[in-house]
Amino acid sequence: MKMSHRSLPDKTIERLSQYRRNLLICLSQGKHHIFSHEIALIHHITPVQVRRDLMLIGYSGTLRKGYDVKELIDLIGLILDTEEGLKVAIVGIGNLGRSLIGYFSGKRSKLNIVAGFDNNPDKIGKIYAGVHCYSSERMQEIIVEEEISIAIITVPADNAAIVAERLVMAGIKGILNFSPKPLNVPPHVYLEEIDMITSLEKVAYYVKKQL
Amino acid sequence: MKMSHRSLPDKTIERLSQYRRNLLICLSQGKHHIFSHEIALIHHITPVQVRRDLMLIGYSGTLRKGYDVKELIDLIGLILDTEEGLKVAIVGIGNLGRSLIGYFSGKRSKLNIVAGFDNNPDKIGKIYAGVHCYSSERMQEIIVEEEISIAIITVPADNAAIVAERLVMAGIKGILNFSPKPLNVPPHVYLEEIDMITSLEKVAYYVKKQL
Repeated sequence: MKMSHRSLPDKTIERLSQYRRNLLICLSQGKHHIFSHEIALIHHITPVQVRRDLMLIGYSGTLRKGYDVKELIDLIGLILDTEEGLKVAIVGIGNLGRSLIGYFSGKRSKLNIVAGFDNNPDKIGKIYAGVHCYSSERMQEIIVEEEISIAIITVPADNAAIVAERLVMAGIKGILNFSPKPLNVPPHVYLEEIDMITSLEKVAYYVKKQL
Repeated sequence: MKMSHRSLPDKTIERLSQYRRNLLICLSQGKHHIFSHEIALIHHITPVQVRRDLMLIGYSGTLRKGYDVKELIDLIGLILDTEEGLKVAIVGIGNLGRSLIGYFSGKRSKLNIVAGFDNNPDKIGKIYAGVHCYSSERMQEIIVEEEISIAIITVPADNAAIVAERLVMAGIKGILNFSPKPLNVPPHVYLEEIDMITSLEKVAYYVKKQL
């Protein structure tokens, strides 16, 4: 089993994460082997694409039985996860922030939300689904102390830039931004943005075209 | 002003939505003209990209003053919006569903969430941020009656497929899916998927590569 994933394409990373999620379901249903065309069917892509992705991570199945589900899950884990896991903070404990804490909790054992931050005195000191909410003023201190490397931003657009700046200063290495404001981060910080309003407007555009 | 947006690229649609959001901010700050390099700076892309997008929708500024902000907002509106707006339903009034109702409310006047659906008897009949929660059993009836064309799915993965099927049967034309399950919809229904777990795992992958 060769490990040649030095520079996997962005889209392959996304698909590996998605494959794993469905492979875990397969395994829980007692399915131990799977063919590329079965994986392809679940994800609405071609079997060639699946085989190409898995070849990129140095994995090949057997012609007769396909891929070993457990082995493949473990291999994807070696690529996506760190052994000890990574710690995540969430900045902005509004409705969206709270729902994300609930959403992510327990879904990925290797990614743990360990702290929340907010300015609202009513929220500071409270526990949300097991996650302690700290004052935003303590951001740097807690991030360093807890060795948090990833932050999720759910603050309003106006505050997003200053929050991102402070996260970077505190040593955060990766940011998932839900605020509808494009952020500026230095090249050593990985930024992923989820733009929910644009996604909805895109759906609307295609619906409109069909009217 | 030529309108030649028959088949705009997917990415152009996304950027038009993002441009408009920031142009609205500019306008509210009293800025009435903007250059392509200023738009480019906000969105971290090249001025060439901005000019190409705006050329695709048949708009060009003047060399001296740049683009007219108000005109550009209106033109993007002509492309993305329908005159009377589109109605949106949200299926799954859990934490995520409720936070999305709050999040989208008032953000886009042309896209209105007019109904929520859930199975939970405690939620049925309640109003969440102005949105009535109906029993999922009434999905078809309400969608037809209210002429709802877009649905947001926030139900757990296990229920997503059956919900999508029922939405399609009810005549929904576009779906924004937040459930971590790839959905199958017929070609005439536009599907956009937001996979939050994969986005977070992708951030973690790039953070790990730097450790």
